[in-house]
Amino acid sequence: MKDVQIEMDDRGVYLQKVGIKELVRPIILKGRDGEMHSVAKIGFNVSLEKEKRAIHMSRLIEILDHWDTVISYESIQSILNEIKIRMESNQANLLLSFMYFLSKTSPVSNKTSLLHYQCKIDASDKDDFVYLTVEVPITSVCPCSKSISDYGAHNQRGVVTVTVRTNDMSSIEDIIHRVEAVGSMELYSLLKRVDEKYVTEVAYDNPKFVEDIARDVAIQLQKDQKYQWYQMEVENYESIHNHNAYVCTGSE
Amino acid sequence: MKDVQIEMDDRGVYLQKVGIKELVRPIILKGRDGEMHSVAKIGFNVSLEKEKRAIHMSRLIEILDHWDTVISYESIQSILNEIKIRMESNQANLLLSFMYFLSKTSPVSNKTSLLHYQCKIDASDKDDFVYLTVEVPITSVCPCSKSISDYGAHNQRGVVTVTVRTNDMSSIEDIIHRVEAVGSMELYSLLKRVDEKYVTEVAYDNPKFVEDIARDVAIQLQKDQKYQWYQMEVENYESIHNHNAYVCTGSE
Amino acid sequence: MKDVQIEMDDRGVYLQKVGIKELVRPIILKGRDGEMHSVAKIGFNVSLEKEKRAIHMSRLIEILDHWDTVISYESIQSILNEIKIRMESNQANLLLSFMYFLSKTSPVSNKTSLLHYQCKIDASDKDDFVYLTVEVPITSVCPCSKSISDYGAHNQRGVVTVTVRTNDMSSIEDIIHRVEAVGSMELYSLLKRVDEKYVTEVAYDNPKFVEDIARDVAIQLQKDQKYQWYQMEVENYESIHNHNAYVCTGSE
Amino acid sequence: MKDVQIEMDDRGVYLQKVGIKELVRPIILKGRDGEMHSVAKIGFNVSLEKEKRAIHMSRLIEILDHWDTVISYESIQSILNEIKIRMESNQANLLLSFMYFLSKTSPVSNKTSLLHYQCKIDASDKDDFVYLTVEVPITSVCPCSKSISDYGAHNQRGVVTVTVRTNDMSSIEDIIHRVEAVGSMELYSLLKRVDEKYVTEVAYDNPKFVEDIARDVAIQLQKDQKYQWYQMEVENYESIHNHNAYVCTGSE
Repeated sequence: MKDVQIEMDDRGVYLQKVGIKELVRPIILKGRDGEMHSVAKIGFNVSLEKEKRAIHMSRLIEILDHWDTVISYESIQSILNEIKIRMESNQANLLLSFMYFLSKTSPVSNKTSLLHYQCKIDASDKDDFVYLTVEVPITSVCPCSKSISDYGAHNQRGVVTVTVRTNDMSSIEDIIHRVEAVGSMELYSLLKRVDEKYVTEVAYDNPKFVEDIARDVAIQLQKDQKYQWYQMEVENYESIHNHNAYVCTGSE
Repeated sequence: MKDVQIEMDDRGVYLQKVGIKELVRPIILKGRDGEMHSVAKIGFNVSLEKEKRAIHMSRLIEILDHWDTVISYESIQSILNEIKIRMESNQANLLLSFMYFLSKTSPVSNKTSLLHYQCKIDASDKDDFVYLTVEVPITSVCPCSKSISDYGAHNQRGVVTVTVRTNDMSSIEDIIHRVEAVGSMELYSLLKRVDEKYVTEVAYDNPKFVEDIARDVAIQLQKDQKYQWYQMEVENYESIHNHNAYVCTGSE
Repeated sequence: MKDVQIEMDDRGVYLQKVGIKELVRPIILKGRDGEMHSVAKIGFNVSLEKEKRAIHMSRLIEILDHWDTVISYESIQSILNEIKIRMESNQANLLLSFMYFLSKTSPVSNKTSLLHYQCKIDASDKDDFVYLTVEVPITSVCPCSKSISDYGAHNQRGVVTVTVRTNDMSSIEDIIHRVEAVGSMELYSLLKRVDEKYVTEVAYDNPKFVEDIARDVAIQLQKDQKYQWYQMEVENYESIHNHNAYVCTGSE
Repeated sequence: MKDVQIEMDDRGVYLQKVGIKELVRPIILKGRDGEMHSVAKIGFNVSLEKEKRAIHMSRLIEILDHWDTVISYESIQSILNEIKIRMESNQANLLLSFMYFLSKTSPVSNKTSLLHYQCKIDASDKDDFVYLTVEVPITSVCPCSKSISDYGAHNQRGVVTVTVRTNDMSSIEDIIHRVEAVGSMELYSLLKRVDEKYVTEVAYDNPKFVEDIARDVAIQLQKDQKYQWYQMEVENYESIHNHNAYVCTGSE
């Protein structure tokens, strides 16, 4: 049976990433609370030399199917190296997009409940790190509104999206803690009335512009040597507008 | 050239809606401020008798291409009747999903700016009305949080989605006004500092649960004979949670 | 501490569903291949009598947190009854939206790989069934294109979305099998070259309009007494257009 | 009334982009066929010096409200310069995401119909160009499937997303034409039977892997001096899989 993919190509165009996108698979993550099951949307790519016409995409699936799907820097490097050899490629790349869960205890009643965080891993075999992205939802209270109003202050949910270079999956929880420490207040799934009073007052005592949150996250990240490189977005779903307040900044 | 679509079908299955989806076209709307240009995602369907194998879908496109795209009850009925005749169908259906724009004046500084509202029209030739859906964003301040806290109150953007039966496109603006009247406060794109103080204080003076907003919207709609039938959803993007508060209710 | 939620309400508006939306949690499903971990987007609602101002939403979270999250008709009824009693409500409703995974064997090389299917459960304590929705992707080859062309035929991925009333979660796999039996061909994640030749030829031998697929799915469902009620959508991502071909029909 | 935004900031963190996101406005584009109305999702940002606490976001809205919204390189530079001066910022950035429409004539019956293309403009006052992104849908026929099968070949819709640096909005249509020239076949909204036969046969005569399309697009872009820098993604919605084939590559 003819193998069209292995034909020679004379167009002279090197392709950086060739592969698959939007495959969905169950994965296992290891957190502070132990093993955690989640579901990942997966992209899996290799580079293609300019002399070769196409890759054999079914091999990407075969290798994913034999992966233990326990997500760690080592397991990702291992699958990237395997696919590079199997595809005779110069470079390999894996993207995982998934929900992470963290058990949180409410501040006064001490009730425990899960909170969910969208995460992304972008890994290349060329790097000794992965790009890890964590979306951390927070409360933001507007300092201008508080300052000029006789009472009240508009506030809203915001999302801080941080990308760092790391080779340690425990950075997910570390980033969550650093970001949650610098919103006007952190979020919980379960709040009893005593907790709701507490989070309302703490947030009001702690008003922050989208710019303040971005800067305080930057300082949190700069505290640790390992986050020398970062990118971040802060997006507040303004409760007084039908558009969002936004910051995008980073170390480069 | 063979016409496979007109073959006889002996499976005995009548199809309620057959057509196209996700076509995108510029449209023209008429509002209080005059003509307005927008873009609609379009679905266009006819019923198919059980004896006929398939419809000629290209005719749906041809008729859309000759439409003046000025959205009114009459123009929609006209295109539905045309397609019914052209397709020898029993029933025809048009769906339009588009952004509506309204010029709003800020409450103190009197600055004017556009606000955008997602809308949907679901029309059948069998009805003497269309199902009109309007999404109206509002501010909601939590009465519990205000009541139990020494200061502050969590608040957030919410979206009220109202569906009514109407044959008058001015119902879009009418529904917007009715919903905006009963949030803790309405939204604006442009607010100067004097306005921000005003909307913050009005909202704080006017705390409403997601349930309160739903009920006040229901009362607003019941005031007018023409909204005897309605469905609504209220969804608040809680600023203290990573999930939303929700009401879904209606006259049936 | 004041309890604003339990205040009397004199607006006279009964609310059908009040609760939470967009909470995300890990869940466990039981399939033919055994236990399966997935992640669900959750809605959880109760009705609210017209005399009561608001519900205590934190109770919804508390009950979800104590749920074993093993999805079955019985476990869903159990959580619905618990919340009804806890909230003194007339009616309770649970919505789950999640990815389901099925191990499939390629037709010639017998290679096994997972395929993913989007599912939804909409359950009310008032019913002795849930509304189960399964999205099944398939291949569709256009009979018109095949018939009029000297060679080739345009084909594309389509998605068949079936909703049935059932009290048995094994209906998920049953519906998948019924729908996959009547596309031009079923999909696989892993196909070697011998498989690709096979699926290409089977699909070409089996051209079907979006209307044909809808009717053949209807006949498949009508074969079984238990699917007396169904709704379905078929949507083909036409490879020759930038819009989709569409059918929406059902038993009512 | 206190102006909290103009307070001094001693955290020492420069912010690259501060502004608004997800504002929606009508816009006007100029194409080969004349003026075209569309709707844009807008982001509008300025940089913020490390000494200043926050920007006055309402000024971004005020300036957008006075914009004529006729999209050209000059009108974008003009609004960027205005906002830089007004905000005393070092840098300004505008993002526009919108649907573009092109009138296309079917290949045999010569019927004319609109096709829609998603576009994006990312502009900074520091550059003498904008980043223009155009998504062009195409048909792709699989060369492997054609080669190994006795008849038929799987094919599907694909989307080629090209980003270039340009200061000329006519590049939108130029890129559309270059990409449509190198798919297995281009798409149309309206195809009569004679056209469908034609596009089916042309596509079958012209099988291309996702890699082939990427390379042929690269060669098309390299033909013109003005596209010295480009990035592209090609994504095929495989009709035999529930995942997509993917290439991402570019000149850097």
